[in-house]
Amino acid sequence: MRLSELETPCLVLDRGRLEKNVTVLRRHIEGLGSRLRPHGKTAKSIDVMNLALDHRSGGITVSTLREAEYFFAQGIGDILYAVGIAPVKLDHVADLIRRGAAMTIILDTIEQARAASLKGRERGVAFPVLIEIDCDGHRSGIGGDDPLLIDLGRFLHREEGVELKGIMTHAGGSYNCGTIEDIRRMARQERQGALTCADALRSVGLPCDTVSIGSTPTATLTEDLSGITEVRPGVYMFHDLVMAGLGVCTVDDIAMSVLASVIGYQKKKGWIIIDAGWMALSRDRGTAQQVTDQGYGLVCDCQGSPFPDVIVTATNQEHGIIARRGGGDIDFNTFAVGSPVRILPNHACATGAMHDRYYVVDGTDEIVAVWDRINGWEDGPQV
Amino acid sequence: MRLSELETPCLVLDRGRLEKNVTVLRRHIEGLGSRLRPHGKTAKSIDVMNLALDHRSGGITVSTLREAEYFFAQGIGDILYAVGIAPVKLDHVADLIRRGAAMTIILDTIEQARAASLKGRERGVAFPVLIEIDCDGHRSGIGGDDPLLIDLGRFLHREEGVELKGIMTHAGGSYNCGTIEDIRRMARQERQGALTCADALRSVGLPCDTVSIGSTPTATLTEDLSGITEVRPGVYMFHDLVMAGLGVCTVDDIAMSVLASVIGYQKKKGWIIIDAGWMALSRDRGTAQQVTDQGYGLVCDCQGSPFPDVIVTATNQEHGIIARRGGGDIDFNTFAVGSPVRILPNHACATGAMHDRYYVVDGTDEIVAVWDRINGWEDGPQV
Repeated sequence: MRLSELETPCLVLDRGRLEKNVTVLRRHIEGLGSRLRPHGKTAKSIDVMNLALDHRSGGITVSTLREAEYFFAQGIGDILYAVGIAPVKLDHVADLIRRGAAMTIILDTIEQARAASLKGRERGVAFPVLIEIDCDGHRSGIGGDDPLLIDLGRFLHREEGVELKGIMTHAGGSYNCGTIEDIRRMARQERQGALTCADALRSVGLPCDTVSIGSTPTATLTEDLSGITEVRPGVYMFHDLVMAGLGVCTVDDIAMSVLASVIGYQKKKGWIIIDAGWMALSRDRGTAQQVTDQGYGLVCDCQGSPFPDVIVTATNQEHGIIARRGGGDIDFNTFAVGSPVRILPNHACATGAMHDRYYVVDGTDEIVAVWDRINGWEDGPQV
Repeated sequence: MRLSELETPCLVLDRGRLEKNVTVLRRHIEGLGSRLRPHGKTAKSIDVMNLALDHRSGGITVSTLREAEYFFAQGIGDILYAVGIAPVKLDHVADLIRRGAAMTIILDTIEQARAASLKGRERGVAFPVLIEIDCDGHRSGIGGDDPLLIDLGRFLHREEGVELKGIMTHAGGSYNCGTIEDIRRMARQERQGALTCADALRSVGLPCDTVSIGSTPTATLTEDLSGITEVRPGVYMFHDLVMAGLGVCTVDDIAMSVLASVIGYQKKKGWIIIDAGWMALSRDRGTAQQVTDQGYGLVCDCQGSPFPDVIVTATNQEHGIIARRGGGDIDFNTFAVGSPVRILPNHACATGAMHDRYYVVDGTDEIVAVWDRINGWEDGPQV
């Protein structure tokens, strides 16, 4: 079956590119003496994660408890839930642990630690905990010079119901770097921030077995992982236009695209209308601040070859407008009504999230598999 | 059961506000002598659409064939699919028609009309067709002075497999209006654009039974619907911060919110961290160009009362940062770790799309029902 036979819009994944991306980064991390704990937040698919793991036992990272449930049901037991724990979710994590999952949580406040200790004692489990560290000021975490780090470490080490496993940080600021050298600097800062906090805990006699870092830009460009026990990138499996704009990959490495159909024109304006809008492409405009603004995505033919400088310039819910970047003529004959096109995404996490499955190809437009994705959060109680 | 018992993030719908919103607009449209054909693209829920229809037989509008399948299975037979038809979807529409649905399609090219005629003859159906008109230059459709309108009308009237039912337009440009008077002007322009094209078809002896218009801003503020047979708004059921910014509703009319939990702080920066990021709130920044920029949403307590000028200023995938608009002190005691908050959305269509169901409340934090939503496109073939 060919892509051109599918109802549009839908999500396409190139398996050859995926396999290359996961192999290159795994070898890089292992070559530096550390271990990959791939983040499932982008893939949300057991088929993709199995390729990323390649039979390693280093476990995975997740961004939702729904991912945790799904991957655990698929046989992956070692799971780090890398969003600061909300007390209302502790019962669910305890359930997973009691069913046999090696679930680790993260936190950065005494209030969360108290709630976890209380719930752990109530449910007869000890939650493994990493303290979240702030290495770049972009979001959550404790600064390396904050006395809270040691207070929290002592609490987690002392109290029942919780167990101090180490620290984790995420250099999310690397997405805003301007040059490769900036990303390398951020990678050094991420590693150093983690090591400083690990040393601070150890210097007062606290355990810190796990020193966990990771973002796709820093993981790709790091040159030194000594002292780092695991690295947690996610986007690297697919890459995207933001990563290409950063210089972390090339456009030819991007494994994810959205298949759409041409449904009309405004020829005087140089517009082609397609049936993929922000609902299929996402609202992400991550390339807007980069040197090359890719609009809502770069347009390719059905085999996956880009049309240079032809992008999705605007979107409504189920409509996209294709035009030449900066205006200019477009060959309407190449885009007959009904023609399938493939759109490379700004941000693979955001675009993937709009779809329930991948139509898998391998360098052509022939579909070789269909892989499901697990979106959303919990099913929750029916009232 | 209370909202505070739910795992976060999740989607909350206030039934009282929904009922008020659907009643006010239905009375307005019917009072002007026209009929509502509510758009299901925002609600994607039979429970919401049944309230919007209130037992009327005027049919509904959909933005995907998945919505069409879902609403048809729930007993709604009269369905307008209001995205220019892609030839690859004609077989599916023919299936729906052969199963008894009164499905209408839209198009604005001869190529689509030829494909529909061919497929209609092949499948033994006549696709009811509305010609899409461009009333404001924002997207698709034929201009009123384009000779293609009559050519297309004649083709659809003459050929087998298709049946000319009339015309439709959508004043999407109304979302960018600056004042109430601008929206009223846009409403007049939308109506006039539709009537001009309807008259042009009729003047050469072609039928034009349906004259269909509609957007939430123009439908809310129109003062004259003479000659208009149906109006197709969708967002009005929930309203959102973009609509409030336009003056189409007040903040107190907004029926949709995202429930999140406080999971940490950066107190020196005046930040509260919650577990709702762009995955739960959407990337939509529709208020960025309005007088009051609401960030990624306005923060309310668990009962739904807004904290003035407290907004979500930044998001990552599963993290949001709450701060005071423009900086300034925030009362951290009001936002203890674990506290539930509700975030009003910029754009109800985009925020709703990130969730699988509504937790329904009615003015308080007590859950009175759970209603499912139907996201995505077709399940497609398994290869």
